[in-house]
Amino acid sequence: MSLLVVGSMAIDSVKTPFGEREEAVGGSATYFSVAASYFTDVRLVAVVGADFPADTLAFLEERKIDISGIERSAGETFRWRGEYGFDLNTAHTLDTQLNVFESFSPRLPDDFKDTGFVFLANIDPELQADVLGQANAPRLVACDTMNFWIEGKREELLKTLSMVDLVVINDAEARALSGEANIARAARRIREIGPRTLVVKQGEYGALLFHEGGVFSAPGLPIEDVCDPTGAGDSFAGGFMGHLAATGDLSEAGMRRAVVFGSVMASFNVESFSYDRMRALTSEEIDARYRAFSELAHFERL
Amino acid sequence: MSLLVVGSMAIDSVKTPFGEREEAVGGSATYFSVAASYFTDVRLVAVVGADFPADTLAFLEERKIDISGIERSAGETFRWRGEYGFDLNTAHTLDTQLNVFESFSPRLPDDFKDTGFVFLANIDPELQADVLGQANAPRLVACDTMNFWIEGKREELLKTLSMVDLVVINDAEARALSGEANIARAARRIREIGPRTLVVKQGEYGALLFHEGGVFSAPGLPIEDVCDPTGAGDSFAGGFMGHLAATGDLSEAGMRRAVVFGSVMASFNVESFSYDRMRALTSEEIDARYRAFSELAHFERL
Repeated sequence: MSLLVVGSMAIDSVKTPFGEREEAVGGSATYFSVAASYFTDVRLVAVVGADFPADTLAFLEERKIDISGIERSAGETFRWRGEYGFDLNTAHTLDTQLNVFESFSPRLPDDFKDTGFVFLANIDPELQADVLGQANAPRLVACDTMNFWIEGKREELLKTLSMVDLVVINDAEARALSGEANIARAARRIREIGPRTLVVKQGEYGALLFHEGGVFSAPGLPIEDVCDPTGAGDSFAGGFMGHLAATGDLSEAGMRRAVVFGSVMASFNVESFSYDRMRALTSEEIDARYRAFSELAHFERL
Repeated sequence: MSLLVVGSMAIDSVKTPFGEREEAVGGSATYFSVAASYFTDVRLVAVVGADFPADTLAFLEERKIDISGIERSAGETFRWRGEYGFDLNTAHTLDTQLNVFESFSPRLPDDFKDTGFVFLANIDPELQADVLGQANAPRLVACDTMNFWIEGKREELLKTLSMVDLVVINDAEARALSGEANIARAARRIREIGPRTLVVKQGEYGALLFHEGGVFSAPGLPIEDVCDPTGAGDSFAGGFMGHLAATGDLSEAGMRRAVVFGSVMASFNVESFSYDRMRALTSEEIDARYRAFSELAHFERL
């Protein structure tokens, strides 16, 4: 089945202990759609300014991502500048310029409205709800969010959460959203808001899946050459949703595999700045890394 | 095979967001030996003051732990006072009184010298090396350490590490010891010092095993009722070494299972203050939790 993502496209300037990159393409919808494109057909809704690199748009089309939902606006593209210390789990924002993103009001092209799988990346929860109103009964709706909305638009966010099937957030967001420091309690409270399924991203430590009372823990792959964690969470979501959409398998076992494919894509993403490492992966590389995760987590019961 | 532990016995006063406990029994060797006693015969070498609770010594004997190596000294037992915020991964020390521990010079009773499995808990690395000199060719020697020794007695610690087969430390210690922020690189450097095998404890996130070039990630069990993490690392080491000593299986598969049994014992330990939860576990409880870890980490390859 096809997969629709609505989110941001950005130009990021990032500094990590391992290097820096000025004005590279980023944004949640960019990372998500590139990662997901290795699994299924992706439809992308976002806004870019007149300055957005044409070669990125060409690359997305090469990846068979349908970019007809990208609004090209006069003005500058959303810009983010940030850095990471040795604790790569936490980004420090130095500057944010919303630019054309400030007045973004996502509109689904008519031929996007029947998409089976929908991912609402981290945007204003009112816009997320609005997008849902434009979609015709998708089979699965998932969303991300961030502390900015948890603190600033809590009621609107709770309304959106009550309308989605699945939430993909990181552990700090899960704690802020639930008011619970303990992650198992946090998960229970978030699922009480409405979503049946919760995925908690834990950066280098992996991810937890809370689904129908069961819990799954996907490990983080210890990688020696971590370069830049920007977009890791979005790449995770892209691999996760991409696998779900490709297989249509929403069973517990299918969800678990999807979490691992999310981890696989995130593990590639952190090996480079921007989406460089994800530009030209082969299915052999993806499968080999999936096997590496399988070996990483495997132990025989006695 | 029998398992020897040399470490501290203490009286701890601990405050967590979930309660507090004044003057409860703690110490690395206490937690370790109680956890390990569910798997194998344990021989305990430590020092206590005249004020150490007799009922704890009686309890250890009930658990068939050989306490003939506990030196009873005039003076007061080692005391630690600390607290934890909602981030239970980090202890904040408020006060340390070494007391009788300050002049501790561990002596192995003659009938302890042939113990097959030896665990040198977190004490002065010179004392760890001295204990090794008293032991007759144990099959496996493992040790723990802490930042205090990494910073204060680095050369002595490196010497001890070059003499052991296996190191069990937490991620902050691995980073401090290696000078590498990246945990995969840190592991490689530590194994270059000498130990063939490294276990990195990651608190609520689980543990990593680096062994012969392979990596294993054991998940952390998301527990709703976490009470006090004090002693979790020592309980982990006790379950891990206890299982290794009981089975004698030092294969990769055996090591992996041992890491999970370590995680099992740590997960019980955090459910209470002191070693309350580990006082009277049944083998059914331990097996059930081992299965819970197995289900937590399990996914089918495609």
